[in-house]
Amino acid sequence: MPHRDQPRIALTLGDPNGVGPEVVLKSLSDARMRRHFKPIVVGSLSVLRQHAEKLGWSAMALEGVDTADADVGADVLPVLDTAPGETIHVEWGQTTGWGGRLSMLAVERATDLCLEGEVAAMVTAPISKEAISIGGYAVPGHTEFIAERVGTSQYTMMMVADNLRVGLVTGHMPIWDVPKGITVENITGRLRTIAASLQRDFGIERPKIAVLGLNPHAGDGGVLGREEIDAIIPAIRQACDEGVLTFGPFPADGFFAIGAYRVYDAVLAMYHDQGLVPFKTITFEQGVNYTAGLPIVRTSPDHGTAFGIAGQGKASPGSMRSALFLAVDIARRRLDGEAA
Amino acid sequence: MPHRDQPRIALTLGDPNGVGPEVVLKSLSDARMRRHFKPIVVGSLSVLRQHAEKLGWSAMALEGVDTADADVGADVLPVLDTAPGETIHVEWGQTTGWGGRLSMLAVERATDLCLEGEVAAMVTAPISKEAISIGGYAVPGHTEFIAERVGTSQYTMMMVADNLRVGLVTGHMPIWDVPKGITVENITGRLRTIAASLQRDFGIERPKIAVLGLNPHAGDGGVLGREEIDAIIPAIRQACDEGVLTFGPFPADGFFAIGAYRVYDAVLAMYHDQGLVPFKTITFEQGVNYTAGLPIVRTSPDHGTAFGIAGQGKASPGSMRSALFLAVDIARRRLDGEAA
Repeated sequence: MPHRDQPRIALTLGDPNGVGPEVVLKSLSDARMRRHFKPIVVGSLSVLRQHAEKLGWSAMALEGVDTADADVGADVLPVLDTAPGETIHVEWGQTTGWGGRLSMLAVERATDLCLEGEVAAMVTAPISKEAISIGGYAVPGHTEFIAERVGTSQYTMMMVADNLRVGLVTGHMPIWDVPKGITVENITGRLRTIAASLQRDFGIERPKIAVLGLNPHAGDGGVLGREEIDAIIPAIRQACDEGVLTFGPFPADGFFAIGAYRVYDAVLAMYHDQGLVPFKTITFEQGVNYTAGLPIVRTSPDHGTAFGIAGQGKASPGSMRSALFLAVDIARRRLDGEAA
Repeated sequence: MPHRDQPRIALTLGDPNGVGPEVVLKSLSDARMRRHFKPIVVGSLSVLRQHAEKLGWSAMALEGVDTADADVGADVLPVLDTAPGETIHVEWGQTTGWGGRLSMLAVERATDLCLEGEVAAMVTAPISKEAISIGGYAVPGHTEFIAERVGTSQYTMMMVADNLRVGLVTGHMPIWDVPKGITVENITGRLRTIAASLQRDFGIERPKIAVLGLNPHAGDGGVLGREEIDAIIPAIRQACDEGVLTFGPFPADGFFAIGAYRVYDAVLAMYHDQGLVPFKTITFEQGVNYTAGLPIVRTSPDHGTAFGIAGQGKASPGSMRSALFLAVDIARRRLDGEAA
């Protein structure tokens, strides 16, 4: 079963002016790593060549291909060129509209490869939300864009590092808009999605999920906000009624202070920084971003474009490597599930 | 100079039904600890006796006194009784209006002792915001109450543990209200208060302060919120113009991921959980709450009433001990400053 043992994984390059292409190349340097999967890069071959040259990277030969299943040798890295024939000049560290457009073209193509079954998973290098906005994409981020393209509204961003898994009720939106997203329906939807993903993608039979409060001290009985009473507690009750083992709402600061997350299979945070700040504080850039609830498998490293160090060879491929391994794990578990 | 070497410190009992009285007693158990200061408890003697009995605590004799400077022996713990002659029945772990009222009476009295110069600092055990609300106090918390009583509007909650100091622009308020508090005036005010406190209270001559963004990715150039552009960046510029070394705004998750806080003397977070979640994740209950900018010195442990374990002898006095030491340090530094 070669497909299962060595699934094909698409890697998008991310913003051409950031560290995305660099961490893609570095993560594939080790031939032992590549035993576990077949990589295919989706992005501009011209951009990738400039990054390889700047890095002095020569672990594999870069070769443009037309289809994901093109037959290439073990030491060849196939690139599905999203700007074929074009010579593009990388502007190291710059936020540009063309960089934003190129980033998103690769994401579109890789998503379609997943939907068509040409690849078993996609791993996305970081894009710049400002660049894609300048480039004409009116989407808040990667995750929202992919979800829309695969036709799913019930998905959830999850950060994963070993047994710490943090999901978010609201994602890339201003703090101002967050309370509007804290509804019974939204929270129970996320809880169902996370519980199903923990079973299907992570192989946990009876997952336990902790839910954080929105307000300081989880609202302190209503004194510091009503969302806990009006939405979060009813949502937890409903999820429990449906058989999802759900606990909370916990005040976020105390929850992480005592390491309570260790006894749950996942933690549901109400907004971006509430989940990502403790996650990154605990995992120190080894975390992976996973989009639970999609029909396709998509992971990404948990860092940004890091324009400040683009083209300097300083970016660590650790999180990108973890993202590749998680994609392979989940892809295999899903293939096993389909086979069973 | 006995006053400087052994300053008198007031300890309020906090909510009588929580772990406050327990951590007060435990923090004073060690006679070596008491060499550094003279403790005086402010609260109900009847409540304190019940906690001591439940704990089997007998390190010192409890004795009601009428004035803070009453002459007692080294093994006597003086208690300024806020409910003299009353026998009060502790309701372990219960949220009650009488508990809330009793908590606040002690805070009032201790604040006045500070203002009158009877004590050099106050250390406050945890209260329940719900209990004080039931008890008829329409204040969001300890800090706001004390600030109002001493007539200060320019104060800032700071969490302190070794060299990590985290201040907040907004405090105990629902997330919904936070963006309204993010104004140029409010932020520059906090920066001035923190810079002055770092100099006066912590002895740092040229303090450097890092400022976090409000929105995910610090607004990502305006795509995920405007407060960074409209208020935070102008406030940083203004503070720099006034000579306060200020940096940012930094996306909160990345800032803590790479441990960037280590190179600053303080971090200014925009709201409660944004500051307290990483602080507590890093310090594991060893942190202390300090109110910067007050004419008096006030610290407190960074845990709550912990009603769930009240009266069980399980509460750790670690944070209360750290709060006492910080209060003594700052009180001495202020006394030295006045003497100089």
